[in-house]
Amino acid sequence: MGNEVSIKAGIVGGAGYTGGELLRLLLNHPNVDVAFVLSNSQGGKPVHEVHKDLLGDTNLMFTAEFQAEADVVFLCGGHGAAMDFMAAQTLLPSTKVIDLSQDFRWNESTEDSAVKGFDRAFIYGLPELQREKIEQAKSIANPGCFATAIQLALLPLAEQNLIQEEVHVSGITGSTGAGQSLSSTSHYSWRDGNISNYKVLQHQHLNEIRRTLAGMQKQELPAINFVPYRGPFTRGILCTSYLESELSLEEAEQLYKSFYRSHPFVTVTDTIPDLKQVTNTNKCLLYLEKQDGKLIITSLIDNLLKGASGQAVQNMNLMFGLEETAGLKLKASAF
Amino acid sequence: MGNEVSIKAGIVGGAGYTGGELLRLLLNHPNVDVAFVLSNSQGGKPVHEVHKDLLGDTNLMFTAEFQAEADVVFLCGGHGAAMDFMAAQTLLPSTKVIDLSQDFRWNESTEDSAVKGFDRAFIYGLPELQREKIEQAKSIANPGCFATAIQLALLPLAEQNLIQEEVHVSGITGSTGAGQSLSSTSHYSWRDGNISNYKVLQHQHLNEIRRTLAGMQKQELPAINFVPYRGPFTRGILCTSYLESELSLEEAEQLYKSFYRSHPFVTVTDTIPDLKQVTNTNKCLLYLEKQDGKLIITSLIDNLLKGASGQAVQNMNLMFGLEETAGLKLKASAF
Amino acid sequence: MGNEVSIKAGIVGGAGYTGGELLRLLLNHPNVDVAFVLSNSQGGKPVHEVHKDLLGDTNLMFTAEFQAEADVVFLCGGHGAAMDFMAAQTLLPSTKVIDLSQDFRWNESTEDSAVKGFDRAFIYGLPELQREKIEQAKSIANPGCFATAIQLALLPLAEQNLIQEEVHVSGITGSTGAGQSLSSTSHYSWRDGNISNYKVLQHQHLNEIRRTLAGMQKQELPAINFVPYRGPFTRGILCTSYLESELSLEEAEQLYKSFYRSHPFVTVTDTIPDLKQVTNTNKCLLYLEKQDGKLIITSLIDNLLKGASGQAVQNMNLMFGLEETAGLKLKASAF
Amino acid sequence: MGNEVSIKAGIVGGAGYTGGELLRLLLNHPNVDVAFVLSNSQGGKPVHEVHKDLLGDTNLMFTAEFQAEADVVFLCGGHGAAMDFMAAQTLLPSTKVIDLSQDFRWNESTEDSAVKGFDRAFIYGLPELQREKIEQAKSIANPGCFATAIQLALLPLAEQNLIQEEVHVSGITGSTGAGQSLSSTSHYSWRDGNISNYKVLQHQHLNEIRRTLAGMQKQELPAINFVPYRGPFTRGILCTSYLESELSLEEAEQLYKSFYRSHPFVTVTDTIPDLKQVTNTNKCLLYLEKQDGKLIITSLIDNLLKGASGQAVQNMNLMFGLEETAGLKLKASAF
Repeated sequence: MGNEVSIKAGIVGGAGYTGGELLRLLLNHPNVDVAFVLSNSQGGKPVHEVHKDLLGDTNLMFTAEFQAEADVVFLCGGHGAAMDFMAAQTLLPSTKVIDLSQDFRWNESTEDSAVKGFDRAFIYGLPELQREKIEQAKSIANPGCFATAIQLALLPLAEQNLIQEEVHVSGITGSTGAGQSLSSTSHYSWRDGNISNYKVLQHQHLNEIRRTLAGMQKQELPAINFVPYRGPFTRGILCTSYLESELSLEEAEQLYKSFYRSHPFVTVTDTIPDLKQVTNTNKCLLYLEKQDGKLIITSLIDNLLKGASGQAVQNMNLMFGLEETAGLKLKASAF
Repeated sequence: MGNEVSIKAGIVGGAGYTGGELLRLLLNHPNVDVAFVLSNSQGGKPVHEVHKDLLGDTNLMFTAEFQAEADVVFLCGGHGAAMDFMAAQTLLPSTKVIDLSQDFRWNESTEDSAVKGFDRAFIYGLPELQREKIEQAKSIANPGCFATAIQLALLPLAEQNLIQEEVHVSGITGSTGAGQSLSSTSHYSWRDGNISNYKVLQHQHLNEIRRTLAGMQKQELPAINFVPYRGPFTRGILCTSYLESELSLEEAEQLYKSFYRSHPFVTVTDTIPDLKQVTNTNKCLLYLEKQDGKLIITSLIDNLLKGASGQAVQNMNLMFGLEETAGLKLKASAF
Repeated sequence: MGNEVSIKAGIVGGAGYTGGELLRLLLNHPNVDVAFVLSNSQGGKPVHEVHKDLLGDTNLMFTAEFQAEADVVFLCGGHGAAMDFMAAQTLLPSTKVIDLSQDFRWNESTEDSAVKGFDRAFIYGLPELQREKIEQAKSIANPGCFATAIQLALLPLAEQNLIQEEVHVSGITGSTGAGQSLSSTSHYSWRDGNISNYKVLQHQHLNEIRRTLAGMQKQELPAINFVPYRGPFTRGILCTSYLESELSLEEAEQLYKSFYRSHPFVTVTDTIPDLKQVTNTNKCLLYLEKQDGKLIITSLIDNLLKGASGQAVQNMNLMFGLEETAGLKLKASAF
Repeated sequence: MGNEVSIKAGIVGGAGYTGGELLRLLLNHPNVDVAFVLSNSQGGKPVHEVHKDLLGDTNLMFTAEFQAEADVVFLCGGHGAAMDFMAAQTLLPSTKVIDLSQDFRWNESTEDSAVKGFDRAFIYGLPELQREKIEQAKSIANPGCFATAIQLALLPLAEQNLIQEEVHVSGITGSTGAGQSLSSTSHYSWRDGNISNYKVLQHQHLNEIRRTLAGMQKQELPAINFVPYRGPFTRGILCTSYLESELSLEEAEQLYKSFYRSHPFVTVTDTIPDLKQVTNTNKCLLYLEKQDGKLIITSLIDNLLKGASGQAVQNMNLMFGLEETAGLKLKASAF
C-alpha cells in the first residue's frame, strides 16, 4: 500500500512515557491521523503541555472521553489499566487493539500463542517471531522491553532446538523503563553515577520469554537466569546472554543472519557494539562471540522504541498491510 | 517542488561529528542521493565503521577522492579545512557549496552580507535572517552553534533598533560541540559531573553575531558580553540573554511572534522551557521574561542540528527550492 | 583547643540532604559526639536506613523527640521549619544554634548584621565576612549555597568600595541543591542531559547577598543580576561574575589574595578552574580574569559543604574555639 | 601504635589516577609524610597542576628522580612499569614495596601465595584473605579492582569448599578504571548515556581470582564466568555473582557475617544496596539472596579506593602495624 492509506489512531493513556513516544512516532507517520489522545488526568490540556518537545508540532488536546470510531487503539496505561479499559469500554468489532502493557502477554491458560480476553485473542506482537500471525491479528499484546531484547537474542537457537543448557543473561536498562512516576530510584540525585540490580533471577518478563521459547523448542527449556540492572542513563537496554553450545562462531553467525535476513530492524553485527548505535531508533543489534565452549549473544534495543512504542507501530504497520518500516526510519541520536 | 527532485550531494570531511550528523539527515531526506563521503583519514572504509549507528542503513564507503559532479557539496572539515579545500579543488560553477566551518562566516573586509573567496560570495546561512538571499545563493557559510542560539534571541530586537544597552549572555553547551577529537576536557572521567567556563567575554562566535546585529541595527551596537560554559551532557545549547528594554512583556512577545511567524523551526513558548524540548530536532525555542526593567530571552537549540548540520540541510532545502522542512521533521529524543 | 574538647551536637531535621551531609561530617569530627538526630518522619529508625552510606559507620537511631542538653543544635529542616522549631521548643540559654535554612538570614528590619528572633540574635555565618562575630555568636544563620559562592566572589571588591557598576552573575547548580523531595525537575529521565534556567534575575539568595555587600560598601550598591541554571550533575556550584572595573588583573589578584590570606578554605587560583576541584570538599576556588575593561570572577564550591553543612561545621568550629578546619580536611572525590 | 609513627612514603608513577588518589589519602593520613612523588612526564611541576583538587593542600613537586630513603614505595605506573622499575632501581632492603599494577599478582610459577621477583616475594594484598601474611610482608601485589569485588563475594564460600558449581558473574565499572589515557571509550560524547560489554568471559582479572579461590578450596574449582560492562559513571564497581548452593539464605548470611566479622571495611547488608553507598569510601558492601536454589551475592566497591589506592593504604597500615583503618575513614560522596 502507499501513502494514500490513512489510519485513524487513538491513544489511551497518552500522558505517560510510552504514550508520548507513540505520539512522536504517529505524528510523523505518513499513514496515520491521530484521532484522539485520551488521558484521565490531563483531559482538556494541550498535548504539548505534557510532552513538551511536541510544542510547535501539534495542537492536539488530551481528551478524557473515549472515541469509538478509531481504526486502531493503542493502550498505553500502566499494567492493569488495559484490563480495566477493556472491561469498561465496548470497542467496535472492527477496531484493532495494540496493548503496550503486560495485561495480555501471558497467562496460565495461554494456548495457541494467544491470550483470550473480552472476546478477543491477543497475539504476542514480536514480529520477528510471528509476523504472519500479527498481520492477521485484530488484537496485539506488545512485548516487554527486556523481553524483546532477550528473545531476539535467543529465537534462532530455540527454533533449532539448541537451548539445551541453562542460559545466563545480564542486562542494563535506562531510567525511562520505569516511566514518569517519581520514585526514589528515579530521583536524579540518587540515580546519577549509581548502579543497582533488582529482581535478580525473578524479573516478571521471564514469563513471556519462557512462553515464547518453550513454544518454539521441541525439547524442554532449561532455566533462563536473568540479572537486571538499573543504570544512570535514560534510554536503552543492553543484554548479554550466554550458554553452552556446540555451534562454532561461524555456524552461529550463519544461523542468526539467516534467521533475521527478512527482518528489517534486526542486524547481526561483526564488530562489538555499544548502546548508542540503537538509541532513538527501532533497531535491534545482535553480536555473537564464542568463548570456552559458550556462545555469547549481546543484544541492544531502545527500550521506548523497539522495546515499546516503536514495536507497537511496527505491529500496526503489519496489521494494516503497510511497509513494516513506515514511520520508523528514525535518525539515531548517536550522542 | 515535490518528491521527484533528486539532489546529488557530496560530503567533504565526512568522518567527523557534523559530517556524521549530516549523513544521518541526508540518508533519510526524500530529495537527496548521497553521491560521496570524502574523508582523508577513512577513505575505503564503510561509513558505518565510523558512524556506527548507520550500520544496517547504508553500504556507502568513504572515499579519499573528491568527485566533482555533485549538485551540492557540504564542507564539514575543521576550521581552516574549507579554505584549504577550496584552494585545492576546482568546483564546477554549477555546484553549490555549504561550508559548516567558520572559514567564510566573517572577515575584516566583509561587505554586503557576503564573504568573498575563490570566485564565490559566501552568504551567511541563517534562514531566519535572510531566507531570500539564501534561496538565491550558490555558496553558504553555515553559522556557528552558539552564534545561532544568540542571534535568534536578538534578531527581532536588532531589526527594530532596540539593542540600545549592553547585552549580557550566558550559555551552556554539550560535549559534541567540541567534536570527536580526544582532549582533556572531553575525557569522560573529567567531564562527568563537571562544569567549567571558557573564553569568557572573548568567544570567537561574537564576531559573526556582531556582524549580523550591526548590519541590522541603524544605530551603533553596544557590547555583547558572553559567558560560555561546558556542561556534562552531549547535545544542545541553552542561552540566557538580557538587556535593559522599554518593551513590556506583551510588546516583546508580540514582536518576537510576529518576527518568527513564517519561520517553521522557531517557536516562541509561553512556558519556561528546558533543553530536551529541542534535543535531536532542528527547532529553536525562545522564551521571554521581563524583570526589573530588563528583557530576558532564553534560547535553545540542538548544537549539531539547528546549530550545524540541520541548519545546513535547511539551507540546502532553500537553495534548491524544496520545502524548508524537508527531511527535518525529526522525532525528539525527549529523554 | 585540642582533641580533648568534646561537643555534644544535636541535629534537627536530620533525614534530609543537609542533615545527612552534616552527619557524615560530625561522625568523623574529632571533637564532636552526636547526641541525637531528630526527624519527625523517621523517628525510631536507624540513621543508616535513610543515609545508606552510613551503614557500618554508626548505630545511631533517629529520634522524634528533642533533647535539650546539647551544646549545639543544627537546624536542617526546610525553610520555615527553623522558625517553627524555635517557637515550639525552649532551648537552654547555653545551647548554641546553627540554622541552615533561610529563616534567620535576612529580614526587613535587620540591623547590626544580625536577625533578631526568639531572644536570640542570629549572626550571618559567612566566616570570610565576619569570623570574629561568629566566634562570639550564640546563634548562626548559615548562608545559602549560591549566596556563598557569589559573596565570596565579591567581598574583596565591596570592602574596597569597588562595586560601582552593575554586576552580572550566572551560575549553575547540581541537583542536591533541591534536596531529596521528588519533583519533576529532579526526575532522572528529565534532568539527565538537560539544562534549564529558573528565577532569572529574581533568585531569593539575592536578598542576603545584597545585605552583605551593601553593609560593606560605603556607597550605594548597584544592581546584582543573577541567572541561575539547573545542571545535570549532583554536587556543586560554579558562578561567573563580572563588572566594569578599573583594577588591572594584577591589582585584582593582589586584592583577592590579600583578602583571603588568612582564610583556609578559599584559594585564588592562577589557572582556569573546574568544578570537580572542589566537589566533596569545603573549599572555595576563585579565578580572576580581565577582559575589555571588565573584571571577571569565577567562584566554585560544593553546595552541600561550603554551601551548607561544611560551612555549618566551620561555624561550629569557630564558635567553640576549635581549629577552623577541624573535621573538614576532606578527600576530594576528584572524579 | 599511635600518632607518633611517621612513615616516609614515596609514590612512583604519581601522575596517573591511582597515584593521585593515593596522594589524596596520604596527605591526610596521620602517620605518613609523602617524601616524593616521581613522574617521568611531570617532573618539576607542582603536584596540584596535575591533580588539581590538591591546589591549596600541598606544595609538593613531582620529581623525575627516585629517592631511595623511603620507608615504603608505592608503584602506580601502568602494567609493566613495575617490572621495569624494579629492574632499573636498587631498593634498600628495608624499603617496603606496594605495587598497584598486575605485574606481581600472578604468574605461572606462583607458589606459596607469593610471586617471586627481584629478590622479593610479593604477597597478594587482599587483607580479608590473608591479613597475617600482609602484616609480615615486605612486598605487596595490590589486587585488581574487579578482582577485589569478585573475590570478596566468594571468599567465604571457597573457604568452606562450597564453590561446587560454575559461578556466573556480571559487573559494571566506571570510567576511572580505564585511567586517564584518552581513548574512544572514554570520550565523553561516546560514553555518556552508553553501555558496552568487553572481554566477555575472558577478563584478565580472572587469573588472580582463580588463583585465590583455587588456593582456598580443597576440591577443584569450577569455571568462573564473568561479563564485564563499561557504564556511564566515573567511580565504582557493582558485581552480581550466583551459583547453585545448598545453603539456605540464613546459613549463607551467617557464614558471610562470621567470615568478615573482624574486617572493618566489609559489611554484609540486609537491604538491597546501591553503588553510591560505597562511592568515595574504602568499604565493600555484600548482599545475599537465595532464588531457585541459587545463592546470589551482590558486591560493591569504589574501584579507586578498595579497588586500588585505598586498599594499598590498608595494606600499608597492616605492614607498619598501624590501625587498619588509619587515614581511611572517608566521608562518602553519597551523591
